[in-house]
Amino acid sequence: MLGWLRRRRIRARGVTRPVRSEAVEATRVELAELAPGPQAYLGQLAYLTLVLFENLGRGAAVSPTVSGKSRLGRVAAEVLEIHEAVLAELDSRRFDPAESMEPHRALLDDFQRRTMGDDWHEILMTCYLSSGFLLDFFAGLAAGLPGGLSDRISALLSDDEAEDLLVAELRDALDDNARLASRLAMWGRRLVGDMMLVARSALDIESRSDGEERVEPVFTELIAAHTRRMDALGLTA
Amino acid sequence: MLGWLRRRRIRARGVTRPVRSEAVEATRVELAELAPGPQAYLGQLAYLTLVLFENLGRGAAVSPTVSGKSRLGRVAAEVLEIHEAVLAELDSRRFDPAESMEPHRALLDDFQRRTMGDDWHEILMTCYLSSGFLLDFFAGLAAGLPGGLSDRISALLSDDEAEDLLVAELRDALDDNARLASRLAMWGRRLVGDMMLVARSALDIESRSDGEERVEPVFTELIAAHTRRMDALGLTA
Repeated sequence: MLGWLRRRRIRARGVTRPVRSEAVEATRVELAELAPGPQAYLGQLAYLTLVLFENLGRGAAVSPTVSGKSRLGRVAAEVLEIHEAVLAELDSRRFDPAESMEPHRALLDDFQRRTMGDDWHEILMTCYLSSGFLLDFFAGLAAGLPGGLSDRISALLSDDEAEDLLVAELRDALDDNARLASRLAMWGRRLVGDMMLVARSALDIESRSDGEERVEPVFTELIAAHTRRMDALGLTA
Repeated sequence: MLGWLRRRRIRARGVTRPVRSEAVEATRVELAELAPGPQAYLGQLAYLTLVLFENLGRGAAVSPTVSGKSRLGRVAAEVLEIHEAVLAELDSRRFDPAESMEPHRALLDDFQRRTMGDDWHEILMTCYLSSGFLLDFFAGLAAGLPGGLSDRISALLSDDEAEDLLVAELRDALDDNARLASRLAMWGRRLVGDMMLVARSALDIESRSDGEERVEPVFTELIAAHTRRMDALGLTA
């Protein structure tokens, strides 16, 4: 009976899952003012998509079902499409892709190690929450890029079909499994700090005297979007 | 001096690296007669591409360079494109993708475990040799599929740009490193048996009295192509 109720609540909530463009709209003004230059932005986003790809590969390798593997494959294909497009943007500006990614390597490798997850469900949560949080964030940050580039990157990051696949996979697992739900709620809370650290590292806070002030509403909105993402699974953030 | 000679030999040999279509041409007749039905063929190829994707993700995660990570990402994107196209073919025949892949899971998971490799270079060799050998093999086997499907799959598998990226990455590593060369030559030899097992499992040998006879030239040609692939790295098969 309770299980049925919970399931219904999860399904109903699913409809209100935030769309990427909504989640970032509120913070576009603040983000635009804190955006780094094109090379730093593109370099970090390119390396981030490699990290997400590796996490998805690791998830696929431990998936208990063939369909889970295949879903993660589809998400990885989307993430790699973003990666290729970002490399092309670097290339067209005559920035060397590898050189542009290098400065972001240590921090993102560290992020990857800390948020790795121990099993299929934790890896899946990491894939869902970190791609949601960080690609949302980079979509918002794109507001501070030069005109044409800003539009192309925003369009590239606006498709969150991949997120739907991860939500579907997680919902299947969470259905009627209260113990897993509480474990994943904990895991979700643990990830927030690490994701914020990555987001913060991408911002140009120091060069403005009111940097800290401006960054506040951005993080408030990112956490609100994270809460909605947890909500979509019926989990407490 | 010797290093320089070896390097020149590798570079020179690289030009003769076999193109997929050549490698399979010789065996198309034999393979056509031993081909399984569309569901078995597509299901195994779909699952195989997932295994290759996971291996590439694992390789990217341990890549010592950012450019290596990125190259493996590009190869993975190509492998996942094949995966998606094969799923679409299953779908259009009203075969459930997950159900069609399931029968091939145990054997391919086992293959993956046995050929995993311990470090960046072994993983890279596994990615290069197993995608070369097995996608070559499936390209040849496509000759036995019904007309339209056969053509589409052949076209899908004919692009081996991905292989060039892996060859380039391996050559960079092998340049002037005799110890690594001998270790990877060993690793390459170890992989042959496991790859043959996978290829054999895809063939319908038992239902024909001359199955074993017909399968001989196929394996001879697959091993010859494998030797050319090792050759392209300046390694002895």
